[in-house]
Amino acid sequence: MIGWEDVYKVVVAMVPLYVALMLGYGSVKWWRLIPREQCDAINRLVCYFTMPLFTFEFTAHIDPFKMNFLFIGADTISKFIIVLVLVFWAKFSSKGSYGWSITSFSLCTLTNALVVGVPMLKAMYGPTGVDLVVQSSVVQVIWLSLLLFVLEFRRAGIEGATANIIVDHGALKSKATNNNNGFDDVNGGKDLEATSTTTLEIGDVGTRPPFRKLMKLVWIKLAMNPNSYGCVIGISWAFISNRWNLEMPSIVEGSISIMSKTGTGTAMFSMGIFMALQEKVIACGTSMTVFGLVLKFIAGPAAMAISCIAVGLRGDVLKVAIIQAAVPQSITSFIFAKEYGLHPEILSTAVIFGMIVSLPVLIAYYAILEFIH
Amino acid sequence: MIGWEDVYKVVVAMVPLYVALMLGYGSVKWWRLIPREQCDAINRLVCYFTMPLFTFEFTAHIDPFKMNFLFIGADTISKFIIVLVLVFWAKFSSKGSYGWSITSFSLCTLTNALVVGVPMLKAMYGPTGVDLVVQSSVVQVIWLSLLLFVLEFRRAGIEGATANIIVDHGALKSKATNNNNGFDDVNGGKDLEATSTTTLEIGDVGTRPPFRKLMKLVWIKLAMNPNSYGCVIGISWAFISNRWNLEMPSIVEGSISIMSKTGTGTAMFSMGIFMALQEKVIACGTSMTVFGLVLKFIAGPAAMAISCIAVGLRGDVLKVAIIQAAVPQSITSFIFAKEYGLHPEILSTAVIFGMIVSLPVLIAYYAILEFIH
Repeated sequence: MIGWEDVYKVVVAMVPLYVALMLGYGSVKWWRLIPREQCDAINRLVCYFTMPLFTFEFTAHIDPFKMNFLFIGADTISKFIIVLVLVFWAKFSSKGSYGWSITSFSLCTLTNALVVGVPMLKAMYGPTGVDLVVQSSVVQVIWLSLLLFVLEFRRAGIEGATANIIVDHGALKSKATNNNNGFDDVNGGKDLEATSTTTLEIGDVGTRPPFRKLMKLVWIKLAMNPNSYGCVIGISWAFISNRWNLEMPSIVEGSISIMSKTGTGTAMFSMGIFMALQEKVIACGTSMTVFGLVLKFIAGPAAMAISCIAVGLRGDVLKVAIIQAAVPQSITSFIFAKEYGLHPEILSTAVIFGMIVSLPVLIAYYAILEFIH
Repeated sequence: MIGWEDVYKVVVAMVPLYVALMLGYGSVKWWRLIPREQCDAINRLVCYFTMPLFTFEFTAHIDPFKMNFLFIGADTISKFIIVLVLVFWAKFSSKGSYGWSITSFSLCTLTNALVVGVPMLKAMYGPTGVDLVVQSSVVQVIWLSLLLFVLEFRRAGIEGATANIIVDHGALKSKATNNNNGFDDVNGGKDLEATSTTTLEIGDVGTRPPFRKLMKLVWIKLAMNPNSYGCVIGISWAFISNRWNLEMPSIVEGSISIMSKTGTGTAMFSMGIFMALQEKVIACGTSMTVFGLVLKFIAGPAAMAISCIAVGLRGDVLKVAIIQAAVPQSITSFIFAKEYGLHPEILSTAVIFGMIVSLPVLIAYYAILEFIH
């Protein structure tokens, strides 16, 4: 069992996040220091500068040659299982849609590994826990880039459709709207989503030229997005520096860390602002909150457990793998959702409410896993 | 003589500041990521949260019982000399004014001790240099609070005058306007300043009730300003913790540092935004730039040298005292100037241009002081 002092360590690591969150919330809602119409500036500072550099700083300092590849493999398999289930759902369920698949994938798999996971697993399993959660967070950077790709793809689809690139738009749109009768109470941007579904279907039926146009647009946007740079350059540097024993010049290191160390604080502040702009603190309805929590704390760890056992992981590594999959929602996934206008209220609730409930949930997981051992 | 590797150390410490500055500049001017009308949000984030907590973090961690009180005394005397000269100038020169006295005081005395001073003096004099510059920066926090006080006093005066609290407004205003015919090419807010001069003169002639009203307003605003809190609580904690050997609970420490460590990055980013909003990078004219540089690099260190010799300081402490007085302009003084609308373009130029020229100037000072020894 973990002692009270270990629980306290986790609390100590989490409270500062809430402080930054409340400062952002209060500066809009209570003290009216930041006018509502100027809030987007803070979000852009986070999305374009602090988060990409935070990502870079982190990925650049790992040793990619000393990773636990069995654990990484299991992590990858678990994500593919989820992707498969969601693709199946989007294709064959009347409630399925491209936008909802992206959000569900986010909720199942993307965790706040660095900020919450590291101190939490340190308290539970010591250095082994930290080591693995750090590795999984590095791999997550790749998945976040993929998420960025599908989000850009979706946006390009929407923009393409708006610009009337797609022929026979009206007929397909009415069909797509029928596809989208699920979560009406939450979905403000129903039309946008319907259109994106349309675009995808066109890709599917083989209208090559518009699909290629979309792909090109997506790649250009991805290449211009600083988050992709942060990830790709960071990992590249990690390989190069470890392969040839190079050290980053202190002038470069300092230039990056001046902004990267603002990452956590400004990201939480920005989320607080987002909360203040919503009508309620829990931005989405009760059913959506429960849906998010189930995906996060049950579906995600379950997929992880299955794939870990499948590749033959046992003991502490298995336990760490399961618990790190249940770490609360990634802040980056919320920032992306906000930037691309895809269910930010659900991801905001998943991050905030998920964080509050995560402490007892993770301790429960830990206790249960101790028994199995 | 200091070696090239010492000069390089200083460069390494300064380049990251320029990187954050250029990111702020570029995001408005080149990449148009942050719209002009939303820029104030970033400035408020810095002024109300990151800088006060940066100040607190710093002041809370010193030992006020182990300071070099002779050095602190000399520092205080030098600032009083400057205040006296400026008061004399404001009273008896036709070019003198309250607003210009505040700005001149800022330029003469307030340095970027923590960010630039520490690495610079570390390269020059090792631990002794760091120790003294850190102490002077703590005392500077008190002077920054006083600056905040006179700025609030000035603003209260302007607001009071606008609200017609002051009787016989017209007659005095015409007199005050005559006082203010100096730096017309730079001073956009001449009317505001004239009015503030008026208010002060009313205080002088003994109109007690409006003066008391102003004082009350100033104290309330000062008590509500997070920068005062950062300073007062920080120093109080430093006394308490060192007197009774108390340690800050890690939960409080973490809650403060999540925002305080964003201080340098966001402050430089905010200044970059300010630069982008100006028509020119060097925001004020050539004569004002030279005026600022002379106050900063000659008047300030000269006053410091006189008072150090007067109190009997010799050797390395004297040298450190002179050089730390010539460290480039405090970023906080620019942020205050921007927040209160008092010559932000001059302080911006002093910070930016002062920083560029400071490296050769300080090395020259260092070499000259070596000779005197």
